Amino acid sequence: MTAGSQVVSSEARPASGPVAVSRSPHASLRPLRLGEVQITGGLWGDRQRLNREVLLPGAARHLEAAGNFDNLRAAAGHGSAPFRGPVFMDSDVYKWLEALGWELGRDDGEGLVRLADDAISLVAEAQDRDGYLNSYYQVAQPAARWSNLAHDHELYCAGHLIQAAVAHARGRGDERLLHVARRFADHIERVFIGSDRPGTPGHPEIEMALVELFRESEERRYLELAGYFVDQRGHRLLGPGHFGASYFQDEIPVREATTVRGHAVRALYLAAGVTDIYLETGETDLLAAIEAQWRDMTAAKLYLTGGLGAHHQDEAFGDPFELPPDRCYGETCAAIASVMWNWRMLLATGKARYADLLERTLYNGFLAGVALDGSGFSYVNPLQVREQHHDPVERGARRQAWYDVACCPPNVMRLLASLQHYLISTDGEGVQVHQYAPARVACGVADGRRVAFEMLTEYPWQGSVTLQIEEAPSERWTLSLRIPEWAGDASVVVNGEPVQVDPGAGYTRVARVWRAGDLVELDLPMPARLTEPHPRIDAVRGCVAIERGPLVYCTEKIDQPAQVGIDDLGIDPSAPLRADRVQQPLHGAIAVKAEGVQAPAGSWPRSGPYGDYRPAGAASELERVELTAIPYALWGNRGDGAMRVWIPIRS
Amino acid sequence: MTAGSQVVSSEARPASGPVAVSRSPHASLRPLRLGEVQITGGLWGDRQRLNREVLLPGAARHLEAAGNFDNLRAAAGHGSAPFRGPVFMDSDVYKWLEALGWELGRDDGEGLVRLADDAISLVAEAQDRDGYLNSYYQVAQPAARWSNLAHDHELYCAGHLIQAAVAHARGRGDERLLHVARRFADHIERVFIGSDRPGTPGHPEIEMALVELFRESEERRYLELAGYFVDQRGHRLLGPGHFGASYFQDEIPVREATTVRGHAVRALYLAAGVTDIYLETGETDLLAAIEAQWRDMTAAKLYLTGGLGAHHQDEAFGDPFELPPDRCYGETCAAIASVMWNWRMLLATGKARYADLLERTLYNGFLAGVALDGSGFSYVNPLQVREQHHDPVERGARRQAWYDVACCPPNVMRLLASLQHYLISTDGEGVQVHQYAPARVACGVADGRRVAFEMLTEYPWQGSVTLQIEEAPSERWTLSLRIPEWAGDASVVVNGEPVQVDPGAGYTRVARVWRAGDLVELDLPMPARLTEPHPRIDAVRGCVAIERGPLVYCTEKIDQPAQVGIDDLGIDPSAPLRADRVQQPLHGAIAVKAEGVQAPAGSWPRSGPYGDYRPAGAASELERVELTAIPYALWGNRGDGAMRVWIPIRS
Repeated sequence: MTAGSQVVSSEARPASGPVAVSRSPHASLRPLRLGEVQITGGLWGDRQRLNREVLLPGAARHLEAAGNFDNLRAAAGHGSAPFRGPVFMDSDVYKWLEALGWELGRDDGEGLVRLADDAISLVAEAQDRDGYLNSYYQVAQPAARWSNLAHDHELYCAGHLIQAAVAHARGRGDERLLHVARRFADHIERVFIGSDRPGTPGHPEIEMALVELFRESEERRYLELAGYFVDQRGHRLLGPGHFGASYFQDEIPVREATTVRGHAVRALYLAAGVTDIYLETGETDLLAAIEAQWRDMTAAKLYLTGGLGAHHQDEAFGDPFELPPDRCYGETCAAIASVMWNWRMLLATGKARYADLLERTLYNGFLAGVALDGSGFSYVNPLQVREQHHDPVERGARRQAWYDVACCPPNVMRLLASLQHYLISTDGEGVQVHQYAPARVACGVADGRRVAFEMLTEYPWQGSVTLQIEEAPSERWTLSLRIPEWAGDASVVVNGEPVQVDPGAGYTRVARVWRAGDLVELDLPMPARLTEPHPRIDAVRGCVAIERGPLVYCTEKIDQPAQVGIDDLGIDPSAPLRADRVQQPLHGAIAVKAEGVQAPAGSWPRSGPYGDYRPAGAASELERVELTAIPYALWGNRGDGAMRVWIPIRS
Repeated sequence: MTAGSQVVSSEARPASGPVAVSRSPHASLRPLRLGEVQITGGLWGDRQRLNREVLLPGAARHLEAAGNFDNLRAAAGHGSAPFRGPVFMDSDVYKWLEALGWELGRDDGEGLVRLADDAISLVAEAQDRDGYLNSYYQVAQPAARWSNLAHDHELYCAGHLIQAAVAHARGRGDERLLHVARRFADHIERVFIGSDRPGTPGHPEIEMALVELFRESEERRYLELAGYFVDQRGHRLLGPGHFGASYFQDEIPVREATTVRGHAVRALYLAAGVTDIYLETGETDLLAAIEAQWRDMTAAKLYLTGGLGAHHQDEAFGDPFELPPDRCYGETCAAIASVMWNWRMLLATGKARYADLLERTLYNGFLAGVALDGSGFSYVNPLQVREQHHDPVERGARRQAWYDVACCPPNVMRLLASLQHYLISTDGEGVQVHQYAPARVACGVADGRRVAFEMLTEYPWQGSVTLQIEEAPSERWTLSLRIPEWAGDASVVVNGEPVQVDPGAGYTRVARVWRAGDLVELDLPMPARLTEPHPRIDAVRGCVAIERGPLVYCTEKIDQPAQVGIDDLGIDPSAPLRADRVQQPLHGAIAVKAEGVQAPAGSWPRSGPYGDYRPAGAASELERVELTAIPYALWGNRGDGAMRVWIPIRS
C-alpha cells in the first residue's frame, strides 16, 4: 500500500510555477509556465536579488543557530540533542527549501544548490520508515503522533514539506524531496482516510499543498485527501482551545461560512486551499462561500495596506470595522497568505478586484515586512507607532534578523522567489497583465501559439508602462491590461492610437492581430490623493491617509522638521499635495509633501487632575507646518521612530 | 526561630478596618475604626446587601465546584485528587475569606460564619509543619517550592492569605487564620531574608499584606520583609518572560520608575504596597516615585471610567494615549487595585485628586464589574461593543457566574464588604468626607473627642447631601467636604448660612464649634455634560462622552429606537441634554436623552471593491434621532447588546 516507489516523473509536461492548475475547466485564467516570465529590474527585481544574495543564505545560518537543522538531525538519529523551539520548527526549513526550489528554477547557483541539497538529504534521512516525518514528535514525543491536531502542527508541517517538494520538482526537476513528501502524504492518507479517522489540521496549509501534489502527480487521491480535511473542518473536532473554535475556523462548516474570522493566517491559508480545490473540482458551493468571505474581509476587516488581523492576542481578525492602526497585527504571513488567496481567486474568476487587492497587499502590507537592506523582517505591521512606545510588547513590529517563531522570514523568501508568477496569466483568448513591473514575457497562448513582449516601467514610482511586442502569432489575440481601482484617468495607446478605457471595467482589452514592434503605452496618472475610512472604523475617525498609485504613505518622525511631533500632527485636507523624489537611503522613492498643522506644545488645557479628558467644546490653537510622507513599505529603515498612516484632519 | 506561637493579641487596641495605618507621622489622614462608619442604604447599601446575600454564599459553591477547596484538601492529606486550575487557585479562597472577615465584622450571620470557619480550618490543616502553604506546590510540585517566582504566584497567594487573616483578626477578633499567616510569613522571611536569597514576586500583592501584618502584629520585621521585596524589584531577577521585564515592573528599580507600565493589576498592587510602606516609613523617594506614576497614569493611560489596561494580550497598560474603547481590557481587578492605591495616596497626602479618581473608579469601572442581580461578574470592561461582535474573544466582557481564572469575583466581594472604610477619614483637626452615600458615622477626632453624624443623600442620582450632626465635642473641629472635580457650581450651607466654596480647592472646610442638630447641606448640581478626549487619544477622536455627576454614561442598543444602530449613531453636541429617571430593571437610575444623528442604511458610497475606504471628501446624509444613554455601570444587565461610551460628533 505504500506508494513510496511510485514516483511520477514530470518530464513529459512543461515545468510549472506555483498553482499549476490542471486542465480543469474551472480556471478562467492560467498561470504562466516556469521561465515564461522574468522580472528584469525595478523594485521587485531588486527585492529578488536581495532574496538570492542576502536573505536565502542568511536564513541557512539562522536555521542552524535556532536548532531547526539539529532537530532534523536528531530525528535522523544523529546525536541526542533535545528538540529546540516551537513544535512547527520543521516548517521553517520547508518554506526556505521551497524558496530555494523556485529560486533555483529561475537561476542556477552553486552556493544555493549545495544548501538545498544538504537540507534535502537531511530531511530524507529524518523520515521514518513508515513515511512519518516530524522532528518534534520523533524527538520529543515519539509515542504521541497525531494526538493533538489542534495545536501541534504535524499536518501544517507536512503541507510545507509538500510545497517545498513541489517547488524542487518543478523548479529544478529534482524529485528527491517529492519522493519524501509523497511517502509522508501516503502515510497521512493511511492514518486518516485508511482508518476513517476524523480529523482536520489546527492550522490549515496542507490543503493547498495536497492540491499541488495532485497537480504534480496526477493522483486524484491527494485532491481527495485535501477535500477530506476541508469537509472535516467546522464540526468542532479541534475543541474550543483558548480562543474558541472560530480561532481555527472550526465552528462552521467551510461551505456555510460567509465571514473571515479567527486567526488570520489560518483563515487565509484555508481560503486559498479551498480555492485550489474549487479550481480543480468546480464545486460552486465552495466558490460561493469563499467569495462571501472575501466580500466580508474587504468590506470591514481590511487595513488600507492590505494588512489583515486586528488582534495581537489571538493573531486574529477583529469584529467588523475593528481596525486599530496602533494595535494592528497585520502579520507579514497574513499578507503573503492574502496574495496566495487572491491569485487563486483571480485564476478562478478572472475578476480584476482580486488583482487589485493583490497589488495593494504586495506594495504595502507585504513589502513593509522586509528591511531595505535585508537585515531584518517584521512580524507585525502596524499603521501607527507613537513617539513614546513600548518596545517589548511591540517587538514584533520592529524588524529583527530572525524570530523565535520564525514563520514570516522564510515565507517572505518563498513569495519573492516566485513573485514573477503573480504578474501575468493566459487564457484561451490571450494574455492578461495584472501587475506592472519591468519584465520579459515569452509564453504560449491558445493552441500553442507563442507571444513575447517586454514590459518597461518605473512602476510604482511612475504610472507609465510600455509593452514592446517582440513576437506574435499571425492570428488575432487579446492583450488585457488591468486598470487599477485607484487609477482615475488611465489611458492606453497602441502604436500612437488611443484605445477606449473604461475605468470601472477592471481590464482594458485590446484584441487585434499583433506584430513584432507593436508598442502599447499605458498611462496610469499618479497624483497623490487622500483617502478616508468608513465612518464605522472608529479607530481612525476624522483622519485621512495619503496614497499615490498603489502605495499607501505614512509620516515617519525622521522626515518631519525637528519641532514637529508625529503624535500631534494634523493635515489640512484642502491644501495641495506635492510629490517629490527623495535621495538615498530610500532608493529614489517618491515622497509626498502636504500642509500640516500641529497644536503647539502645552496647548491642551488640563481640567482637574486628569490630563486626558476635559469638558467638551474648548478650542485648540494650531500652527502650520510642512508634512512629509513616505511609502509605508519603506518605514522603519532609518531607525526606530514614530510613524502614522492615518493623519487627523485639522485646519 | 519559628514565630508560630507568638500570636500577638489585638485586644488592647480598638479594632480596625483595612489599611490600619499605625501611629506613623507620615499619614496625613487616618481611616475610621471598625464600626465607626456604616453605609445605611442607597446604591452601595444595596450592593453590600447583594454581596452578603448572593455573592458570598454563591462563591462558596463556585470554589467547591472549581476545585479550590479540593486542592487545599489534597494539600492537607485528604484524598489524592490531582491539583485543578491555575497555580493561584488558593488566592481565590483567601480573597473570599478576606471578604467574609470584613463582612462578619459589619454584621454577624450564622451561615457565613460556618462557611468562614470551615474554610479557615481547612487552610490551617493544609499548612505544612514548616509553615509553608501553597496547595499547587504541595500537591503538584512538592520538590520545587520557590523555583519559579516569576510565574508561580506563591508570594501572591501568601499575600492574600495574610490579608484574609488580618481581616478575620480585625473584623471578628478571630486570630486562627492570623496564626497560620504568621507562620507562613515567618517561613518566607527565613527563605528570603534568612538565607540572603534574592527574589521578588512575579505578581506583587504580598507587599500590602506584609505592611498590614506589621500593623496588626507590631512586628517591624514584616514591614522590612515588604521593603525587601520592593528593593529587589527592578533588577530583572524575574527574567524577561514572554512580554519583557516591564510586564512585572522589574526593568527599573521602584524608586526610579516614573511611569505605570506592564500588567495593570501587578503595577497597581505594587504601587499600593509601596504607598503602604511610605505611610509607615515616610521615605520621600518612594512617595515621589509613586506620585510620578500616578501623574503618568492619569495624564495618558486612564479610561474615562477609571478603567486601566489597554491590552488584552498582556493585560497591560498601553503606550501613552493608547486607549481603545473596544479593546479596552479595564480588568475589574485593576479598578479594585486603583481604589486601593488611591485610598492609600489619599491617606498619605490628603489631596482630593485621589478621592476624585477613587470616586470615578468606584462608580464606573468597578461597579460595571458585577451584574445588578449578582448573577455574574465581568473580567474585562470595554467602553464599546459593536453590534456584530465576536463572543469567544470578548468573553471576558460578558458577565459570567465564575471564571477559570477567578481573580475578579472574590476581589469584588472583599471591596464591597469593606467599602464603608473608603468614605471618610479623620486627622488631628476633624473629619473629612470624601465620598457621599447614605451613612451613619460615629468616630473619634483628635484626643479621643467624639463626633457623630448622619449623611442623607440620593447620590449618585442627585447631588444634594445633608449631614445632620448628632454629637460633637465642645471644642472647635473642622468638617471637610470634597467638592468633586466634575462639580462646577457646588454650594455648602450650614444651618441656612452659605459657606464659601472654592471649586479648585478640592475640599470645602468648615471649622467651627459644632452642636447636635447642626445641619450641613451640600449641593453638587448634576447637569448632564459632554466630555471630550485629549486629541492624542486616537481611538476616540471626534467623539464626546456623556457624564452626569460621578457617572459616565453609555448608549446601549436596547434603549434606542428600533431603527437606530449603535454603530452608526452620532450626537449633535450643540443640542441640549435631558435627564430622565427610568423604571425597572435599572433601579430608578437616571437616563440622559440627547439629540442623535445617524447615517441612513446604505448611505456609504462604495468605491471599488473595498467597502471600508473611499476617496476623501464625499458628504454623508444624516437623519435626526433621539439618543438614550444610561450609566455605564448598568450596561449589560438586559442581554448582550451593543454599547458605546464615546459617541461620534455629527451634526
